[in-house]
Amino acid sequence: MANKKYVYQFKDSHGLGKELLGGKGAGLAEMTYVGIPIPPGFTVSTEACNLYYNSGKKLPKHVVDEILHAVEVLEKDTGKTFGGKKNPLLLSVRSGARVSMPGMMDTILNLGLNDDTAKTMVEETNNPRFVADCYRRFILMYTNVVKGKSREVMDKMLDELKKAKGAKLDTDLTAEDLNKLVEDYKAYYLKVVGEPFPHDPKVQLLEAVTAVFRSWDNERANIYRKMHHIPYEWGTAVNVQTMVFGNKGETSGTGVAFTRSPATGDNHVFAEYLPNAQGEDVVAGTRTPLHIDWLEENMPAVYKQFAETIDKMEHYYKDMQDIEFTVEDGVLYFLQTRSGKRTAQAALKIACDLLDEGTINEEEALLLIDPSSLTTLLLSSFDDSELKKVTPIAEGLPASPGAATGKLVFDADEAAKRHAAGETVILVRQETSPEDLAGMVAAEGILTMRGGMTSHAAVVARGMGKCCIVGANAIQVDEKAHTMKVGNKTYSTNDVISINGSTGLVYEGEIKKVEPQMTGNFGRVMKLADKHRRLGIRTNADAPAEAKQAKAFGAEGIGLCRTEHMFFDADRIFHVRKMILSDNVKDREDSLNAILPHQENDFYELFLAMDGLPVTVRLLDPPLHEFLPQEEHLIVDLAKALKTDVKDLKARINALHEFNPMMGHRGVRLTITYPEICRMQTSAIINAALRAQKKLGKSIDAEIMVPLIFGAEELRFVKAVIKETADKLIKESGQKLEYHVGTMMEIPRACLLADEVAKEAAFFSFGTNDLTQMSFGFSRDDATKFLPDYYETRILQQDPFATIDQKGVGQLVRKAVKDGKAANKKLLVGICGEHGGDPRSIEFFDAAGLDYVSCSPFRVPVARLAAAHAAIKHKK
Amino acid sequence: MANKKYVYQFKDSHGLGKELLGGKGAGLAEMTYVGIPIPPGFTVSTEACNLYYNSGKKLPKHVVDEILHAVEVLEKDTGKTFGGKKNPLLLSVRSGARVSMPGMMDTILNLGLNDDTAKTMVEETNNPRFVADCYRRFILMYTNVVKGKSREVMDKMLDELKKAKGAKLDTDLTAEDLNKLVEDYKAYYLKVVGEPFPHDPKVQLLEAVTAVFRSWDNERANIYRKMHHIPYEWGTAVNVQTMVFGNKGETSGTGVAFTRSPATGDNHVFAEYLPNAQGEDVVAGTRTPLHIDWLEENMPAVYKQFAETIDKMEHYYKDMQDIEFTVEDGVLYFLQTRSGKRTAQAALKIACDLLDEGTINEEEALLLIDPSSLTTLLLSSFDDSELKKVTPIAEGLPASPGAATGKLVFDADEAAKRHAAGETVILVRQETSPEDLAGMVAAEGILTMRGGMTSHAAVVARGMGKCCIVGANAIQVDEKAHTMKVGNKTYSTNDVISINGSTGLVYEGEIKKVEPQMTGNFGRVMKLADKHRRLGIRTNADAPAEAKQAKAFGAEGIGLCRTEHMFFDADRIFHVRKMILSDNVKDREDSLNAILPHQENDFYELFLAMDGLPVTVRLLDPPLHEFLPQEEHLIVDLAKALKTDVKDLKARINALHEFNPMMGHRGVRLTITYPEICRMQTSAIINAALRAQKKLGKSIDAEIMVPLIFGAEELRFVKAVIKETADKLIKESGQKLEYHVGTMMEIPRACLLADEVAKEAAFFSFGTNDLTQMSFGFSRDDATKFLPDYYETRILQQDPFATIDQKGVGQLVRKAVKDGKAANKKLLVGICGEHGGDPRSIEFFDAAGLDYVSCSPFRVPVARLAAAHAAIKHKK
Repeated sequence: MANKKYVYQFKDSHGLGKELLGGKGAGLAEMTYVGIPIPPGFTVSTEACNLYYNSGKKLPKHVVDEILHAVEVLEKDTGKTFGGKKNPLLLSVRSGARVSMPGMMDTILNLGLNDDTAKTMVEETNNPRFVADCYRRFILMYTNVVKGKSREVMDKMLDELKKAKGAKLDTDLTAEDLNKLVEDYKAYYLKVVGEPFPHDPKVQLLEAVTAVFRSWDNERANIYRKMHHIPYEWGTAVNVQTMVFGNKGETSGTGVAFTRSPATGDNHVFAEYLPNAQGEDVVAGTRTPLHIDWLEENMPAVYKQFAETIDKMEHYYKDMQDIEFTVEDGVLYFLQTRSGKRTAQAALKIACDLLDEGTINEEEALLLIDPSSLTTLLLSSFDDSELKKVTPIAEGLPASPGAATGKLVFDADEAAKRHAAGETVILVRQETSPEDLAGMVAAEGILTMRGGMTSHAAVVARGMGKCCIVGANAIQVDEKAHTMKVGNKTYSTNDVISINGSTGLVYEGEIKKVEPQMTGNFGRVMKLADKHRRLGIRTNADAPAEAKQAKAFGAEGIGLCRTEHMFFDADRIFHVRKMILSDNVKDREDSLNAILPHQENDFYELFLAMDGLPVTVRLLDPPLHEFLPQEEHLIVDLAKALKTDVKDLKARINALHEFNPMMGHRGVRLTITYPEICRMQTSAIINAALRAQKKLGKSIDAEIMVPLIFGAEELRFVKAVIKETADKLIKESGQKLEYHVGTMMEIPRACLLADEVAKEAAFFSFGTNDLTQMSFGFSRDDATKFLPDYYETRILQQDPFATIDQKGVGQLVRKAVKDGKAANKKLLVGICGEHGGDPRSIEFFDAAGLDYVSCSPFRVPVARLAAAHAAIKHKK
Repeated sequence: MANKKYVYQFKDSHGLGKELLGGKGAGLAEMTYVGIPIPPGFTVSTEACNLYYNSGKKLPKHVVDEILHAVEVLEKDTGKTFGGKKNPLLLSVRSGARVSMPGMMDTILNLGLNDDTAKTMVEETNNPRFVADCYRRFILMYTNVVKGKSREVMDKMLDELKKAKGAKLDTDLTAEDLNKLVEDYKAYYLKVVGEPFPHDPKVQLLEAVTAVFRSWDNERANIYRKMHHIPYEWGTAVNVQTMVFGNKGETSGTGVAFTRSPATGDNHVFAEYLPNAQGEDVVAGTRTPLHIDWLEENMPAVYKQFAETIDKMEHYYKDMQDIEFTVEDGVLYFLQTRSGKRTAQAALKIACDLLDEGTINEEEALLLIDPSSLTTLLLSSFDDSELKKVTPIAEGLPASPGAATGKLVFDADEAAKRHAAGETVILVRQETSPEDLAGMVAAEGILTMRGGMTSHAAVVARGMGKCCIVGANAIQVDEKAHTMKVGNKTYSTNDVISINGSTGLVYEGEIKKVEPQMTGNFGRVMKLADKHRRLGIRTNADAPAEAKQAKAFGAEGIGLCRTEHMFFDADRIFHVRKMILSDNVKDREDSLNAILPHQENDFYELFLAMDGLPVTVRLLDPPLHEFLPQEEHLIVDLAKALKTDVKDLKARINALHEFNPMMGHRGVRLTITYPEICRMQTSAIINAALRAQKKLGKSIDAEIMVPLIFGAEELRFVKAVIKETADKLIKESGQKLEYHVGTMMEIPRACLLADEVAKEAAFFSFGTNDLTQMSFGFSRDDATKFLPDYYETRILQQDPFATIDQKGVGQLVRKAVKDGKAANKKLLVGICGEHGGDPRSIEFFDAAGLDYVSCSPFRVPVARLAAAHAAIKHKK
């Protein structure tokens, strides 16, 4: 262990990789290697970070020794001395994780300064103002970053000094002014820290390195990591680099540059420059930077070198770069380069342009675009400048992106009525249930008080591409009173709110929207993605409109048509309820016969919408009690309609109560008990397919999917029921018709016995929502109560309902695909759970050997690109 | 395929095994081989049965050919001719599955008779009455068994004939009478079947064989199989055997014999004999058989041969035999021998006696006793003769065996009160919840309207060894009115019922009981079992009385102490509720501190009761809302006690509502959210262990078990909480104390990642109840609604909550044991689910490499013997 290396000089570490050096460290090593002017320095590795945490948040002595040795090397290379009486070496200390986490962790500049070195530097530079400026900056950052003390007080001290001196800008202050500030800062440090500001540069350095490691675990870093799926275990590296000074006077300065526009992707340099300043001044926005033209006019040679180098860097890295640079006494240094963040629109243009310029190939172009970003191109959104003016009143989970404004409505029926009357409404519920569907369709957006990212409201809204926020706990919804309360303020049905489904924020009143812009590059990139992906892309759609939308977005079939939503339509729910409450097969069949023509028409329209592409219809899945009314007045109405006693009806509804409905009488279990429901649905599917074949003049591939099986026996039973019904209808029709019977794989046991199941199945479709629930043993609805504690204790770093748990649930998926395909060579394998639209999950499904993913219509473009990414990565 | 053999002569098939020949066929082959006088015959194999079912319930031609060929061999061997004009060959056709299924399937005797062969036989035997008797029997059995027509009508025809002729017994009828009956039967056959009675003996034979195969799938066979865990796939064989005739006159007869008493096990032959009769007369009870002494007195030579042969047979088979024999004209034939059914008491005595006699060794002795039968030795039961006089009013599931009589009580509190007042009560509830615990303790027996074999009532009652019936659907319980209704009759709190937990039957009024008898053989067999088993045996016990009981039954430790029951005691439930309803850590800790001394005392008493044996305490498991009152008046009381508003309290209770409580905020998830609960329980366990160590002067091994983890991370978190608390207390005490932290394995994902979990765990204990629920995706409470449909459609052949599903759930268990032990050599692995007391599951757990099983106290003797069985079988 003692021989293991934890510290690497930039000049020696080219090719060691981001995992060890962090992104910034690896970049600095590479730039050094390529010959770009970089101030020398070294990287304390990510392994040292993990060692720090595993050693009780202490730097072990051998790491300390290595760091101090690395400083000695730096002294030799620069001819400067750390804390020395001559030519003092000053350092910057910056964090650098494997992937860029801008603004999440901490930076310290000008480290190495103390009264002695400051004095030496004044002598050597003859620029006391510059030295004082460095010194005061250093004390400020050290106090704030290393000691965790508020910088507000210190900023205020600066402001007051400026006011007292009548200085408008920092640069208007004199050396004396700044030296006074240094002394004030030191006094403040003594007061709040309880000891004098450290004189020894080695102490300063080790404390600074420790502070950066510590910042890996600060709150904003943890939130950022969770949001961007960055594992805690990666740790951060620390980069220690020789300071160069942009604040040495008018021939010095600092700047940032994007090699192309991060907003539009346009191919022109987007850069800003600030003379006589250090980097933080640009970032902090204390002074307004100048256009890069200033540099070209005033220091043309430097500008030329700058322009040539950044062009070289873009070619070298094959991507638009975000660059920091400093000019010290007319000499140009680069401090950092990285791939620049960009809008989705810019990403598309940059990728296409770089491809056309011949800088990158198709695969590289595709990898430059973040699949998740594409959804922003499909949705309307609030005007950013308007958003800045308003304060949200509450925050929930961003369940389905988009922007919506409307009047409040607390009841689904009322939502439908007011929508029909031309009002724009936001449906607000404690939580939604399938009974609310019509209201959800009618509403502009949906807001719930309870529920998680995979709650009913969230799933359905995403399917519709409708803006939705769930689990907004701060909102007290009173559905009976038709009001909601936030803090002390009560909102009722005539109040207007705006909800941002992309951020989860809720606002009072109306906010101006901007309409989505779609450029030609979007279609071009999608075609490129199709060329490179292996996975098929289908959609989860229940209604013809959804299906058409998804087809327009490039879906190659329907992977999941949920039939239960159809049962709620006004023209059939009564028959559904009558059927459920029957106590004999004959009555049930009568009710089912009344539903059959409606159900058949549902499927007919869907087959037409998909125009011959495969359509997978799932047999009825939810427990029957979900179709029954729970509210008193609805029960009374139903009793009247059924000509039965209210008390009796209540007893029958009560008898259907389940302790754990998720694990109750649902899915295939309904067919085992009531094969007549399966017969009705099969008849509807087959008749619809036969009619659609005639109408389209194309053959239809109907896939009938059995939900919730735990083994082969159930599938065998249901297949026999389906086959008997279907074959008879096909024979009677005189047409030929292909149909296939397959199954959801959503119960652990079915995955464990996939070899047996595959012998009965034409296809598998993983229901990763239920599979995740049963593998983890928690229900998604109930888990919202304790998952925050799991994230906080870092037991879970990700929401397993958003991104598939590869380690656990993934084992079942991999095993089922492998065993299933081995047992049945023709087996088609897909996934229709929520994970089907998640890029990281798609990468896993590609690796696991699935044939297709199915996702909500608005995720189809995301899935197409993500599938291409997966194929390209797995080819490597 | 055509070359495969499906038919085997007895004389050629010794050693081919029960799997192929069925138990009876294998026995006949073996008896033939040993030289016991057996009428020759052949077996149509179990494979032929499966072939029959796989060929659309038809006998393929090649099997038909084989059967007819076998008959030819028989003709040669006996010198008789099938359907022949001389010396006609008559046959018996009997079913014979791999294990004996007495009375479940069908038998046909005297096959081969028709008008011609009957005439020949009359000429040859000069015994027209005998032939007519055979013929009428044959037509009756054929019409009933092969054609499925009621035998009632035909029995009535016989009775009427006897009445008309003034005959008391069948044997009083003359040849003419019987020939008249033959003609009447043939006419009846023509009428109900629609064709004449078949003349061709070959047709008779093939139809009879088919009928036996068909009977494998009849309702009573299906029920029997489910009850005795016999797979449907085994199929039955058919034995076709030359008839010998006990009904040829007074020197003929038929009998049954047990080589020892099946009731007590006493070593004397228990046999009955009926002169001039065929076997069915004994079984049917139409005539009362004579004591075997009759044979000794009247046919001493035959008796001597009989006595010697059955002794030889017992020695040969090394077990008490159940034998059928026939004497034809003074010649003795044996028709069947098999191990005899016996009571548990007899089983113990027979095994010990055979061991002492030197007939069998210890392992063989142990295997002679059915582990499950032992429970009957530990419980009181109703007097069998009394039971025969009464009719049950309802039937439920036999959740926990035993017999109980008492007055009805519908409320737990009332049960406790009336019990305290000296009344004997039966607690009747729609279903029970943890709040009913005190009432369950007080009641003599428990009866619920809902729930399955693993419902709360069932599990708790079995733990207590208390008689319990659950899911008695026919009983309408009105808890508010304090009545129950069965059909039109209403019972109230002063009515007495009796419940039989061994059969699930409910009776009105009191029934006399017999007290359990325990003989010395019981203890002896238990010691033998201990000598031969590999698995350790622990018990699931929460209270000192249970623990002592289990220890007396031989438990070697506590494998599961559920702590939640303790939270319901009167002296702490208020604090528990206060704790749950607190909204801050400080208040929760205050309430927990009030509970701590009680909880500590619980564990202290338990440690003392176990006297140094290991005790595994599971941390709090159920969701917190289970501890809160749901009924209005209790909520009002609680609000008063908490000095809070009723409405507010209801809202807080409501906020704890869960959609799927089984998959909600429970188990380890409670510790993640409220580490203070874990700290309290750890303190209680460690303090109790320290005190108990002092008191006993022995070291205590406390095992702390974390429930419901889905991976290693949760266990790591909780272990840290436990360790911090425990180590501090141990250090303060100045004592040494061993404690271990382990985990329940009850969530699929934890099993899939057992290697990681094992690195954090000192032990695994499989919670196969939850593991079964989550692997199958159904909750045990809700599954009671649809599992009957699963049994009926034969999708499930067994209740997976009673016997572990080896194929699915078993995969997870095997993987977890293998991966766990590979990752941690010291890992101790047990099981504490309901399956821990099930012999077939225990055999699986032994094979899977577990270290111990833990079961309810009254199952401990069962488990000890079952573990010995498992070890002996796996050694083979």
